[in-house]
Amino acid sequence: MADTTVQRTSELLYLDDLHVGRRFTSGAHALDEKQITAFAREFDPQPFHTDHEAAKATLFHGLAASGWHTAAISMRLQVDGGLPIAGGIVGLGGEVAWPTATRPGDVLHVESEVVEVVPSRSRPDRGTVTVRSETRNQRGDVVQAATVKLLVPRRSKMDSGIEGPNEVNDRQGGLLCGSCNS
Amino acid sequence: MADTTVQRTSELLYLDDLHVGRRFTSGAHALDEKQITAFAREFDPQPFHTDHEAAKATLFHGLAASGWHTAAISMRLQVDGGLPIAGGIVGLGGEVAWPTATRPGDVLHVESEVVEVVPSRSRPDRGTVTVRSETRNQRGDVVQAATVKLLVPRRSKMDSGIEGPNEVNDRQGGLLCGSCNS
Repeated sequence: MADTTVQRTSELLYLDDLHVGRRFTSGAHALDEKQITAFAREFDPQPFHTDHEAAKATLFHGLAASGWHTAAISMRLQVDGGLPIAGGIVGLGGEVAWPTATRPGDVLHVESEVVEVVPSRSRPDRGTVTVRSETRNQRGDVVQAATVKLLVPRRSKMDSGIEGPNEVNDRQGGLLCGSCNS
Repeated sequence: MADTTVQRTSELLYLDDLHVGRRFTSGAHALDEKQITAFAREFDPQPFHTDHEAAKATLFHGLAASGWHTAAISMRLQVDGGLPIAGGIVGLGGEVAWPTATRPGDVLHVESEVVEVVPSRSRPDRGTVTVRSETRNQRGDVVQAATVKLLVPRRSKMDSGIEGPNEVNDRQGGLLCGSCNS
């Protein structure tokens, strides 16, 4: 039976531990104007992201975070326990949408759910897990909806001690290649 | 006939100026280890993004940038002239993939192509434009492939001076709502 309860866990999870419907929730991140404008000045210097006053005259009706800033914060929340994958969170790619603007003063958290688990046919030590995540503000508005495919190690093959230059190496951190075939 | 040549232009383009097959190329950004680890410490603190030495023992075989860092740099390159959209680059969402790791020493640029132009049925002052972009390193490897839907103002309606709280206001910067319906 699918476990559909929202979970916080300190346990690191392998492919074998994940199933469709397993859910996770992250901690919270409080966003302020300084963070929004600092990110935007470096990566997305457009007035609606960098200038409180100029942003008022736009259709954003005020300062809004860059979508890529919302994505980056969401990643941080998942890395900090919101998505406890063994070997780290290694995304191969996915879809992202920003249905509501992220604003100064927003307190964000991420709710994630496993929507697909696919053991690799060619690499018995790994597989891919697709996770759908919603980043919500303090009012529950979805500021980002993302569906990302992750490379995840398998517990059983890890435990058998398989190593090598192109293998998962759990004893050295279980980190995975972001660009190799799954 | 479709214009399929790569373009750099200082002209800001409206929906009316864009057609399927129109292409753009950005300037270049040189990425170093300091940038990679600084971004990762804030947004994606995993050893393969933050620690040169620890990263060697992983399947990345060395330090790699966070995918969200590659995305953010790609955005900056597009904002800085790589995608000269009137009113700014306002993404509603899209798809992103990172087929090759981004490394210290990489020099990145973005090549973009318009793949769909859809005038809004309900809002005559705007429409959506879908742009497919490839971020490439100095060897031509694609480190990011993205397809993003953008909200873009129409020239004709802008010129007629339509304004209002939910309208594009070109005289005040032509900035658009990232969360309103197209």
